[in-house]
Amino acid sequence: MTAPEYPWERPLGAHPRPDGTSEFRVWAPRAGTLAVRAGGVEHALQDEGYGVYGAEIEAAPGTDYEFVVDGEALPDPSSRWQPDGLRGPSRVLDAAAFEWTDEGWAGVRVPELVIYELHVGTFTPEGTFEAAIPYLEGLRELGITALELMPVAEFPGRHGWGYDGVYISAAHSAYGGPQGLAAFVDAAHAAGLAVLLDVVYNHVGASGAAALEAFGPYFTEKHHTAWGRAMNFDDADCDPVREWALQSAEQWVRDFHLDGLRLDAIHAIVDAGAEHLVAAVSRRVHDITPDAIVIAESGLNDPKVIRPPELGGWGCDAAWADDFHHALRVLTTGETEGWYGEFDSLGTLAKALHRPYVHDGSYSEFRRRRFGAPAEDRPPQQFVVFAQNHDQVGNRAYGDRLPEPARRLAAFSTLLAPFTPMLFMGEEHGEPAPFQFFSDHIDAEIAEATREGRREEFAAFAAFGEDVPDPQDPETFERSKLTRQGDPELRDLYGRLLELRRELPHGEAADIAYDEHSGWLSARRGPYLLVTNFADARVHVPCEEPGEIVLATHRPTVEPGYVVLGPLSGVVLR
Amino acid sequence: MTAPEYPWERPLGAHPRPDGTSEFRVWAPRAGTLAVRAGGVEHALQDEGYGVYGAEIEAAPGTDYEFVVDGEALPDPSSRWQPDGLRGPSRVLDAAAFEWTDEGWAGVRVPELVIYELHVGTFTPEGTFEAAIPYLEGLRELGITALELMPVAEFPGRHGWGYDGVYISAAHSAYGGPQGLAAFVDAAHAAGLAVLLDVVYNHVGASGAAALEAFGPYFTEKHHTAWGRAMNFDDADCDPVREWALQSAEQWVRDFHLDGLRLDAIHAIVDAGAEHLVAAVSRRVHDITPDAIVIAESGLNDPKVIRPPELGGWGCDAAWADDFHHALRVLTTGETEGWYGEFDSLGTLAKALHRPYVHDGSYSEFRRRRFGAPAEDRPPQQFVVFAQNHDQVGNRAYGDRLPEPARRLAAFSTLLAPFTPMLFMGEEHGEPAPFQFFSDHIDAEIAEATREGRREEFAAFAAFGEDVPDPQDPETFERSKLTRQGDPELRDLYGRLLELRRELPHGEAADIAYDEHSGWLSARRGPYLLVTNFADARVHVPCEEPGEIVLATHRPTVEPGYVVLGPLSGVVLR
Repeated sequence: MTAPEYPWERPLGAHPRPDGTSEFRVWAPRAGTLAVRAGGVEHALQDEGYGVYGAEIEAAPGTDYEFVVDGEALPDPSSRWQPDGLRGPSRVLDAAAFEWTDEGWAGVRVPELVIYELHVGTFTPEGTFEAAIPYLEGLRELGITALELMPVAEFPGRHGWGYDGVYISAAHSAYGGPQGLAAFVDAAHAAGLAVLLDVVYNHVGASGAAALEAFGPYFTEKHHTAWGRAMNFDDADCDPVREWALQSAEQWVRDFHLDGLRLDAIHAIVDAGAEHLVAAVSRRVHDITPDAIVIAESGLNDPKVIRPPELGGWGCDAAWADDFHHALRVLTTGETEGWYGEFDSLGTLAKALHRPYVHDGSYSEFRRRRFGAPAEDRPPQQFVVFAQNHDQVGNRAYGDRLPEPARRLAAFSTLLAPFTPMLFMGEEHGEPAPFQFFSDHIDAEIAEATREGRREEFAAFAAFGEDVPDPQDPETFERSKLTRQGDPELRDLYGRLLELRRELPHGEAADIAYDEHSGWLSARRGPYLLVTNFADARVHVPCEEPGEIVLATHRPTVEPGYVVLGPLSGVVLR
Repeated sequence: MTAPEYPWERPLGAHPRPDGTSEFRVWAPRAGTLAVRAGGVEHALQDEGYGVYGAEIEAAPGTDYEFVVDGEALPDPSSRWQPDGLRGPSRVLDAAAFEWTDEGWAGVRVPELVIYELHVGTFTPEGTFEAAIPYLEGLRELGITALELMPVAEFPGRHGWGYDGVYISAAHSAYGGPQGLAAFVDAAHAAGLAVLLDVVYNHVGASGAAALEAFGPYFTEKHHTAWGRAMNFDDADCDPVREWALQSAEQWVRDFHLDGLRLDAIHAIVDAGAEHLVAAVSRRVHDITPDAIVIAESGLNDPKVIRPPELGGWGCDAAWADDFHHALRVLTTGETEGWYGEFDSLGTLAKALHRPYVHDGSYSEFRRRRFGAPAEDRPPQQFVVFAQNHDQVGNRAYGDRLPEPARRLAAFSTLLAPFTPMLFMGEEHGEPAPFQFFSDHIDAEIAEATREGRREEFAAFAAFGEDVPDPQDPETFERSKLTRQGDPELRDLYGRLLELRRELPHGEAADIAYDEHSGWLSARRGPYLLVTNFADARVHVPCEEPGEIVLATHRPTVEPGYVVLGPLSGVVLR
């Protein structure tokens, strides 16, 4: 940690001190007049230079406060607590007051990661951090080692996916706020589970843009993304905006004991400066906890994201690799719509099983360009793969999960791959509830735009009529909650797959072989031979000495010189 | 060289064959109808896929041709010869026909580079390649080792700076076309001079955008630069556009024996793909000639540009470093307008003398952000420094060169620095002619916009009235031609500085010391002590044992314990 050189590098937000006062600091270069109103009393702030203002005033933890910018009371952009939601006051949080019990927690290393993506709002009927705690032991027993919480930064309304958060340092009030999150992380550690947090730095929810803009240029016209103007990470006055994000990343790891972060859609973080914001996040988080795990959701297929800085990389520990999903999805379901079209072969999955960038500089017909770069130098564990995730399920028109016939083989392929596997909550028991796109927008205009956007997105597909679920309908949210009704046998298979996974040596899959025509694919991992059948029919896979059957998704048979697999099934031989 | 995998990777443009035919190939996905008209006859082209069309037809070298796109005859985007200018037909060039005499040419390595930036149009009264040849010997005698030609790609009209070129593979017709260029390079090699070429991939001149767009999406709305829509280097269908640039870079080095390229304004080449276009240019050019020298004009202050690919770099051999210029300019002229303001100290120059990124992650008040990154790992020779260049002279309102009192000390500081020095033509004799901004636009609208743009640019400065030279006035061009009237003594000093430079060891300057108050700065290079005085007054520089005076810009005196320097002067002691 280097000493702050510029005022915006001092702690932003509200920081209580032992004497009952708190230190407030905000970057507000656009404010004509500025004050902090704490406990109903307005206080002036001192000009620290470069548009940064600070004050030390009487305000114990728990005091509500707002910054009054040109007469308008607004939440603190670095707020850590929004007890009354997005438009309510901020509240002084004493992050040191939480009584942690996780001194003995040793953390989890990347090679041991088995990630479980969890949406707090739909994981339980109550939709809170607290309500989720009783299920943690079960997940650990199943073989999960890390939870990945979908975004919890305060977002508009009560429920939503969370990707339109605004107060990036404040745990969502409807989930139980910062105390709820801390208690959840503490309980997870007690259960032997790491907790990773999905954080969104590529945009803020439209409901909050104006509130941030009143303070300063958080956005830039220099670049545009799918969400409009880019966050200002490389234009004039970008340093305090970068710092707003960087300090937020730091506090999650430092004060909430999160074991790491998942950075949303880094391909939409535009930064032409000498240190990309993602590299800066990675550096700052690792400075606090070298073992912290930084995972990028990267649509770039670019291994620089997961290379160390000394090799010109961005220093992330791992990155999502969607191509593996696409190959697996197409082979197990036969769906070839949109970009799925170019993943329609066993050869594609065989390539993805070596390194999951199917596009590693090769031409993508969907993108109409050569895409990606080879990642031979990166160990398999740096790639996060999945058969399902919130996007691949939830961004389908009806949010339907992977169909039943595909589930066992998909789980087999994902959990026994040499990569870091991730499950989407509920898939382990074949959850019947969908995960649909839902929101609870507080601005009528944004609500309508979201509703319309969703309808238009699927209008191109003839199969989807007007019955695409309305995101603003509370029923869409309710319908997406886990029922935990499902298939106990499937859950048992997940447990056995994860048990076997722990026996597999690290390192890449060897002897990858396949028969495009008949549909089988095999690969070796140490002493184990994994044989799979992606065809809809029984297939004879040539096999000199099949050896012992260690695990199977369905009952295979062995004939002299062959192992015979049923449709969409897999077997592990030793 | 890998075999072409996609049709656009085959040679684009016209390529003659020994049998009197030529192979034509063009990427024209937007063409409804397409033909090549050669020697007055229209020929059909075969569809090679992905919007690429090719044909082998009767057309000997020297045949004029055009592509007929939807009924409109247009030059070849990969044209190598535009004998009648931007809007005339292309002509088949037999690049193998030129009789080279440079078999014995051994090239120049980066540590030996002393670059001379040369604008063909104003270097001689005739403004041609041919007319420049008689001066080459003299430049070599002065100590120059490499010429850097300002852009010669066919641009609108007869004269101009060249940065609005369109046919990036065609040497400008008014300069003498491709044969003129080849003869010039051959003569330079005979004289012992390398030739580098300034190439512009960040935009094309507005006069040619429509002609390219008729063929395909050469531009993208995804990114914008100061010139408008960015070149399409990372959006859908970018591969053929990249190839159009990459094959152009290759042919300059392969067919015109250029010793290297200077890539214009790479900070304006927007490319979020896995291999940045600049890295691709560097790789492709080095594949042809490992010793080729790729120099980036980079305003990024980012050492990744000049790191090798295995360290995540873009593989350029060197990059311009403007900060050194700014520090030197401010100290020698006292000018502090605009961005010069933050270079106003001897400490700045002392920093730049170590590594010329003054902004190496530090805050720039002008840019209002932290900028750049440290470049400690890069050897000094990878930075190109200058006291003058076409931009720093020509983009002043009146194009006036460095004023007389500053010249000797500026040359001393630049030529004895551990970096790669570059001169701007004429500075070596204190050329009295300015280098003004001139153009010869063939489109009335663009001419007027250029004229107005120039006026507006300087309107902010009270000192400049309506008399800012009109770029379209032929007199502005004539006025900018070298007169070669100047100061023979200055030329003699340049010769002696370059002679001494050859004695200096490579590697960074040591013992950099300065006195901000009195104005002196000293540094050691091997056995030599360089002492300079940037003050307007005489200064006593403490010096225990001054030793022998090896070279001085002005006559210094030595007093016990001091060397005494006059205003704006330098001395080398040994």
